[in-house]
Amino acid sequence: MSWLETSIMARRGVARGEARSEHAITEKTQGKYHYVYGPYAKPVLTVQPGAVVSAETHDAFEGAIKSETDRPSEKLNFPYLNPQNGPIYVEGAEKGDTLAVYIKSIVPRGPQPCGTTCLIPEFGGLVGTGDTALLNAPLPEKVRKVEVDPVKGVKWSDKITLPYEPFIGTIGTSPEIEAITSLQPDYYGGNMDLPDVAPGAVIYLPVNAPGALLYLGDCHAAQGDGELCGVALEHPTVTTVQIDLIKGWRFKWPRLETAERIMTIGSGRPMEDAARIAYRELVRWMAAEYGFDELDAYMLLTQAGRVRLGNMVDPKYTLGASIAKSLLA
Amino acid sequence: MSWLETSIMARRGVARGEARSEHAITEKTQGKYHYVYGPYAKPVLTVQPGAVVSAETHDAFEGAIKSETDRPSEKLNFPYLNPQNGPIYVEGAEKGDTLAVYIKSIVPRGPQPCGTTCLIPEFGGLVGTGDTALLNAPLPEKVRKVEVDPVKGVKWSDKITLPYEPFIGTIGTSPEIEAITSLQPDYYGGNMDLPDVAPGAVIYLPVNAPGALLYLGDCHAAQGDGELCGVALEHPTVTTVQIDLIKGWRFKWPRLETAERIMTIGSGRPMEDAARIAYRELVRWMAAEYGFDELDAYMLLTQAGRVRLGNMVDPKYTLGASIAKSLLA
Amino acid sequence: MSWLETSIMARRGVARGEARSEHAITEKTQGKYHYVYGPYAKPVLTVQPGAVVSAETHDAFEGAIKSETDRPSEKLNFPYLNPQNGPIYVEGAEKGDTLAVYIKSIVPRGPQPCGTTCLIPEFGGLVGTGDTALLNAPLPEKVRKVEVDPVKGVKWSDKITLPYEPFIGTIGTSPEIEAITSLQPDYYGGNMDLPDVAPGAVIYLPVNAPGALLYLGDCHAAQGDGELCGVALEHPTVTTVQIDLIKGWRFKWPRLETAERIMTIGSGRPMEDAARIAYRELVRWMAAEYGFDELDAYMLLTQAGRVRLGNMVDPKYTLGASIAKSLLA
Amino acid sequence: MSWLETSIMARRGVARGEARSEHAITEKTQGKYHYVYGPYAKPVLTVQPGAVVSAETHDAFEGAIKSETDRPSEKLNFPYLNPQNGPIYVEGAEKGDTLAVYIKSIVPRGPQPCGTTCLIPEFGGLVGTGDTALLNAPLPEKVRKVEVDPVKGVKWSDKITLPYEPFIGTIGTSPEIEAITSLQPDYYGGNMDLPDVAPGAVIYLPVNAPGALLYLGDCHAAQGDGELCGVALEHPTVTTVQIDLIKGWRFKWPRLETAERIMTIGSGRPMEDAARIAYRELVRWMAAEYGFDELDAYMLLTQAGRVRLGNMVDPKYTLGASIAKSLLA
Repeated sequence: MSWLETSIMARRGVARGEARSEHAITEKTQGKYHYVYGPYAKPVLTVQPGAVVSAETHDAFEGAIKSETDRPSEKLNFPYLNPQNGPIYVEGAEKGDTLAVYIKSIVPRGPQPCGTTCLIPEFGGLVGTGDTALLNAPLPEKVRKVEVDPVKGVKWSDKITLPYEPFIGTIGTSPEIEAITSLQPDYYGGNMDLPDVAPGAVIYLPVNAPGALLYLGDCHAAQGDGELCGVALEHPTVTTVQIDLIKGWRFKWPRLETAERIMTIGSGRPMEDAARIAYRELVRWMAAEYGFDELDAYMLLTQAGRVRLGNMVDPKYTLGASIAKSLLA
Repeated sequence: MSWLETSIMARRGVARGEARSEHAITEKTQGKYHYVYGPYAKPVLTVQPGAVVSAETHDAFEGAIKSETDRPSEKLNFPYLNPQNGPIYVEGAEKGDTLAVYIKSIVPRGPQPCGTTCLIPEFGGLVGTGDTALLNAPLPEKVRKVEVDPVKGVKWSDKITLPYEPFIGTIGTSPEIEAITSLQPDYYGGNMDLPDVAPGAVIYLPVNAPGALLYLGDCHAAQGDGELCGVALEHPTVTTVQIDLIKGWRFKWPRLETAERIMTIGSGRPMEDAARIAYRELVRWMAAEYGFDELDAYMLLTQAGRVRLGNMVDPKYTLGASIAKSLLA
Repeated sequence: MSWLETSIMARRGVARGEARSEHAITEKTQGKYHYVYGPYAKPVLTVQPGAVVSAETHDAFEGAIKSETDRPSEKLNFPYLNPQNGPIYVEGAEKGDTLAVYIKSIVPRGPQPCGTTCLIPEFGGLVGTGDTALLNAPLPEKVRKVEVDPVKGVKWSDKITLPYEPFIGTIGTSPEIEAITSLQPDYYGGNMDLPDVAPGAVIYLPVNAPGALLYLGDCHAAQGDGELCGVALEHPTVTTVQIDLIKGWRFKWPRLETAERIMTIGSGRPMEDAARIAYRELVRWMAAEYGFDELDAYMLLTQAGRVRLGNMVDPKYTLGASIAKSLLA
Repeated sequence: MSWLETSIMARRGVARGEARSEHAITEKTQGKYHYVYGPYAKPVLTVQPGAVVSAETHDAFEGAIKSETDRPSEKLNFPYLNPQNGPIYVEGAEKGDTLAVYIKSIVPRGPQPCGTTCLIPEFGGLVGTGDTALLNAPLPEKVRKVEVDPVKGVKWSDKITLPYEPFIGTIGTSPEIEAITSLQPDYYGGNMDLPDVAPGAVIYLPVNAPGALLYLGDCHAAQGDGELCGVALEHPTVTTVQIDLIKGWRFKWPRLETAERIMTIGSGRPMEDAARIAYRELVRWMAAEYGFDELDAYMLLTQAGRVRLGNMVDPKYTLGASIAKSLLA
């Protein structure tokens, strides 16, 4: 946890990046899961900065797809998809602050095979969809159930085993007055499906509503860039995060920090808008806090910026833009 | 009102397209206006199909821009923009039904000059925005106040007078569980900014929540295709609509009918997705209800479809696709 | 022809908008038709400003689709599609000038049924394509042959007859050093598929290469906005245009003038870029030549601009933005 | 060079991936550089498969920007930008074949500081452009000249040195009949600006014209993902490639192979279309040559695909999609 001691969370957080209390959200204490990010739900938990919270997350289908003979179109009931734990009310959090969430660990739970991916009609990156509305016939439905083991990895097939590289697909704070489907990523986080939101990273989320109202869910055991068919390796987990609060740090879109890099996260359509958002936020961050002239930052990122494509399938596409901390010194 | 007697509303509506009761929503009875389309607000009015409702609408700025020396960036308080009347609860309306709203009249109200347009930083069709995020400096702010008279028209300048061609910029039903900013157009209607939503037309809106929960506001005295700078000729009005209910007519996106045409309305980004949605809905409507083979409808629209660009400035762009009724006989 | 006497072509053209000579390009004198817009082909004709030229155009398939049982995928040989007449070398035309082309008439030619539309695999506005590359199976191929009569109209079916509203689908000058497929619209014109490029209008095309090198072809007997399935009512014609030259009138994208309106034409992807191009050009035209402040023009177009969607199927999408001349006085 | 012996080039190439002859293209033997990719230029060199060719490339500005006080808008003369070496005629290459180009080395040449980046008005990823046409004022022009040393790296500033990670920004074959600006990437390669096209990789390019007609230029000393401001670290080089020919291997878009991965490269607008092209090509490649069912490949890439953003600034955006060879066994 060494780098964490020098993180923005540690340097600027109300709790100084320290773990000060422990909490659990079980399926039972969560009760009803949520399908929107908004301020209209009652908090399931209220914590102080410094809280470490373990949450029993469902997979994106709330476990409805149990076997490879299930048909997603019959099992799934839009808009009751992508169930979220929370909201967690963080005391002291107000509009204009930033919530820091350090991702401590993600562990699979539930009976094997606990991993699920599938093809859902009119959803995915290489098919016509509800938004890219076409007359072509949809692809056939298809379900794949796989065993997920933190050590042995994701058993894709007899020949192929993928490493277990879990991350949180959907995490964010509440909008101020909107309540937006948990299928969508946006300025408050949400369904970004960005593999960098993984154990060891800190994600910084703008606070828009009193108490921040943190939601999370939709953990993936593995995912390629873009989450091509729309369904990563979904699985239920126990996910543990540590929450801190940075007063008066105000920005528009989520940010992320790891030992080596800082990243800004943009979501939009078309995809170039997601890239523009992410990179503009990074330019402005470098200018505001790292001593760069804005145009110099723009030119340096031209030579040294990195892009990670999160999803190319959700209502908005998500991209992360980053730069090595070593270039910021 | 002759064509209306043969409209879909008249043929299939619970109230047979008849006006059966009268209601008014004044500024006073409305009280707090709304900034999201969602199911979490208490209805301001409950009506039966056949209700005629007159509503005192605010302009999109709730009157905050009073003079040409006002600066929009100082007067406007995001997300408290585009105030909406409603919601109106329509008895008997359930998910899977359709609300029919016949627009009877729009009349300006309030002291002159009651029309407002302006340039808002980082908003508009020919500037970098929050979504198309760029480093260029924003344009200067600028406000124009104009007199609006239903007969004499819109007095743009000493030399230029535009005809008064009012329409409802924002109208729609509630999503099932989401509450979405009234700045956004989507599958339930919302901020479409489509000039065809004008007196004499019937708009058909899918019902997603019990009672439909109709909202409306944001009337424009004039608007070009695309609402280029983002702010049409905004003005406060008394807007009168007649509401009917079509049970079991289920579709995804708003539809519109006039004496001569039927239209489907799509909203999305990039703009081609809005066009795809609108045209696919039209193809499917022609196939489902007018006896066309789907591919024949596709080919006929290639020769005879018409497109109206509503907005190119809102969180989703809006386009209407239409065909003459005379080609459907 | 009265309005033409007050047109920009008449006021600023080298030939003052007068018809001064007559020329014909027959199938025979054309010989080989062209499939790119570029400077590498030998002119088929050299004329002075004031030339009236009648050209025997082929349909977009060079007549290869002869019956409703033909399969487009077998008959069409990419990239040898959309055959163009020309190039016509206009004496005196240099980079930085503008070619004015008044469209005098379009008349169908050849044996009936001379009109063709069809569904081509992976091409069209509501299907996956080579650019919007998807895994869905393509739609079935389908051909429709129709009779086209200038008076009786386009006999679509026993029940439906469409008016004969012909226009030039593809017209433009040569790029300076590029040679671009005639399937593409761009800054020099090309395959815009914009129904306003019709008899009675003058199109203004930027000159990029010596002699301008005018190409044209691909006339449509009817077309809806967007040319939805990708194939309008294609037909072979005799098309007659009058060519003039405006020295030193320099702009980037095609412009068009009718009795009532001026229009700018943009082509791009995504579609909003086509709209941005068209509207920015119109703002700048109004500022440069009609006495508007640029921001005033932007605001006026917000209330009074009109958009025509040409195509949503070609390598770039095309939109025309226009304003009534009566608002420019 | 071990992996190369197992490469597709070695296994299927006419020259079996062997270096069989050596050639040089100097500034002098090149003479006139080229600004379009097309079949209308005379080959500068004719070779057999197995040829190793060293070319003296110019930077993208042909050396016109010599100092930090130069103004790009004055020094650059569109469309005479991005000068290319070639074309190289490869004997035996016909439409339907594939050219394999192994990139052996890239070495800077010319006096220091030989590296250039700059801000060009209306060009770049975070500004309004000719395509994303806006009314905002452009950013200031700015030039940065930097020393480039293969060992010491790229001296960005006193504090920041970037590693020398050179690659070929622009490389491709000729279209069949088009001649397209060397600023554009497309199905034949061109200005992809993808950092993976680097020493040690083999790029596979579809042959569209007799002799393939290989062009290359525009080498970058360093570049971030997306080439944000539009101008990477441009520098003149001696670039050495080995050319082979694979008969009858037919595909539409460029492919790339390294020791660890296979990649497909798509270019398009909006950016999601580039991603769709790249991933669809990869799905189809896995299905055609690696024994995958197409839907299985689609699902596996969802968990294990990787995306590299080449450029977000050129006339088409470029993305590479890849998968580890270890997952294909």
